[in-house]
Amino acid sequence: MPFTPKELAAISTPAVLIDLDIANRNVERFQRYADAHELNVRPHIKTHKLPEVAQMQLSAGAIGITCQKVSEAEAMVSGNSKIDDVLITYNIVGEDKLESLRELAKRITLSVVADSKTVVDGLSQTFNKEPQPLTVLVESDTGAQRCGVLSPDAAQDLATYIDAAPGLLFGGLMTYPPAGQEASVEAFMKEAKTRIEARGIPVPVVTSGGTPSMMHAAEAVVTTEYRPGTYVYNDRSLVARGACEWDDCALNVLATVVSVPTPNRAIIDAGSKALTSDLLGLTGYGHVVGRDDITIDQLSEEHGRLISAEPIGLVVGDRIRIVPNHACVVTNLVDTVIVKGHGRAVPETLPVTARGKII
Amino acid sequence: MPFTPKELAAISTPAVLIDLDIANRNVERFQRYADAHELNVRPHIKTHKLPEVAQMQLSAGAIGITCQKVSEAEAMVSGNSKIDDVLITYNIVGEDKLESLRELAKRITLSVVADSKTVVDGLSQTFNKEPQPLTVLVESDTGAQRCGVLSPDAAQDLATYIDAAPGLLFGGLMTYPPAGQEASVEAFMKEAKTRIEARGIPVPVVTSGGTPSMMHAAEAVVTTEYRPGTYVYNDRSLVARGACEWDDCALNVLATVVSVPTPNRAIIDAGSKALTSDLLGLTGYGHVVGRDDITIDQLSEEHGRLISAEPIGLVVGDRIRIVPNHACVVTNLVDTVIVKGHGRAVPETLPVTARGKII
Repeated sequence: MPFTPKELAAISTPAVLIDLDIANRNVERFQRYADAHELNVRPHIKTHKLPEVAQMQLSAGAIGITCQKVSEAEAMVSGNSKIDDVLITYNIVGEDKLESLRELAKRITLSVVADSKTVVDGLSQTFNKEPQPLTVLVESDTGAQRCGVLSPDAAQDLATYIDAAPGLLFGGLMTYPPAGQEASVEAFMKEAKTRIEARGIPVPVVTSGGTPSMMHAAEAVVTTEYRPGTYVYNDRSLVARGACEWDDCALNVLATVVSVPTPNRAIIDAGSKALTSDLLGLTGYGHVVGRDDITIDQLSEEHGRLISAEPIGLVVGDRIRIVPNHACVVTNLVDTVIVKGHGRAVPETLPVTARGKII
Repeated sequence: MPFTPKELAAISTPAVLIDLDIANRNVERFQRYADAHELNVRPHIKTHKLPEVAQMQLSAGAIGITCQKVSEAEAMVSGNSKIDDVLITYNIVGEDKLESLRELAKRITLSVVADSKTVVDGLSQTFNKEPQPLTVLVESDTGAQRCGVLSPDAAQDLATYIDAAPGLLFGGLMTYPPAGQEASVEAFMKEAKTRIEARGIPVPVVTSGGTPSMMHAAEAVVTTEYRPGTYVYNDRSLVARGACEWDDCALNVLATVVSVPTPNRAIIDAGSKALTSDLLGLTGYGHVVGRDDITIDQLSEEHGRLISAEPIGLVVGDRIRIVPNHACVVTNLVDTVIVKGHGRAVPETLPVTARGKII
């Protein structure tokens, strides 16, 4: 049930709208694929930051969620949340965060990653007196050149180190793979797994992620678990990559035209504080729904500039809907989103529970 | 009094630090210039979003503040705030916002801008039964190609329209000028003022803004008021433009090294959710204090990648301070900032009162 014109007219702009029917369809589509290929799904919540949407993903069949920061995990399991299984795909460094992790592990099934002995040492010192060990996966750099051990040999070394560390349980291998390098990613993970198992250490989980190649996730047979994030909402970058259609985009930014200075230019009340400066390789800062001719060619913090080679045909007060380049960063900007669908017959305002949780 | 190493070590990262001694020095420097040239100062609060820092600017001699959105103004005058004079440099469109404006005008000295008769009509319909008229300035596009009337003639037309509109008082001319086009900006504003005055309508205020050229603001003798924003904190973009030195940068992002995968690469726990993707024409996403050799060459949401042609010489757990490319968008990401100096002997955590106020 899409937002009606009357409902849209009653919303103060700029606002972030979520069509939960579309979101649920996106979630179910990937879950069906994963189920058919016996792949576990552990969605990354960075895209929505909402316990309500995580619950939708769990209801569809996800085995747990992925968070990037400890404070994000804390927010997602707070209140009435039923979320009880979280993987934090981040090196946890610092006494403050390790203590938060220790508390969190008492309440839920928790696992984290590490890519160095320094990180493992911190985890071990924190958990070596706890009744339950902490599960730690080895993060592998399969080409993205961010975090991660650089070779299967290094993965085996660190797995052995975790296996021997007091208070820790080796949980498997994790990677955030570069898009388009599937064969070398699979080769890395396979070899790492084989080497670790050769040491007599089981590798129960091999977890990978990324929305663009998710419908090919099962082709890497070594992968046991997948962590898509953006797939729940989709965005302009994913349409550009051919991963979805405009109709699959669940998140829109609703904006109002505040100025039409020339026949080919209009200014809206959504700038980089609503759409962000993320270009992700694209030209322009978003797609105006129904208006392929328009480019959002410039953002300042509170203004977005729309230009068209054709007469722009907008007047002050008109409202437009924008599919942003990158959905995840948009939800991080707003205190609330307005949701409809999937059992919600009228628009509801939800606080973005895990917004701004960078610690 | 800068943050001490011990104080920094106690802060959970990533965090936004504000040195209020530096901020106050920046504020006083421009105020001295403005006072010497009989120019009123009305700082744009988008950079700090903090009533405490606005108060510092007012104490130094500012006549009021500038906000971009109604909700931002509401936040800045809420609670114990003594701020009582606000210019909102935005076309206010929509019944919800007009009603908020009407309420706000009861509590403070309020002025807004308009660049079309449609916007003026909305303001007039809202204020024509109020006991006090609303002051409205004409926004002029002097080359930035965002909002604003396009010619002095159009400015005169709209000024005449405002002057005749029930409930409104024509307040003068406003522009957000493009950098480096000072002569044509001044010519536009002078001609517009002359034409309006020729109609017998006084032009009490001609307000301009922008930190990069603020130390030349008085050279345009038509200007009565200036609205610098970023000058209070400064940032990497202003150092690059030669507007300030690194020591004038009051805002730092404190981050922790979480991975050092290769001798020339380190990963920190501050990504685009702390530094933003704003490049402002620069290469890299910030300046690592004391390390000119390092480039922050890639951000994902929670990771920043540091590379250097030299050995990077960092270990997991090290902390670094970053001057971001664009200070204003950084303060919009965090719920709190940590301030020290200007009467605060120890670090204090302040909520960013007007963060995320996009309505």
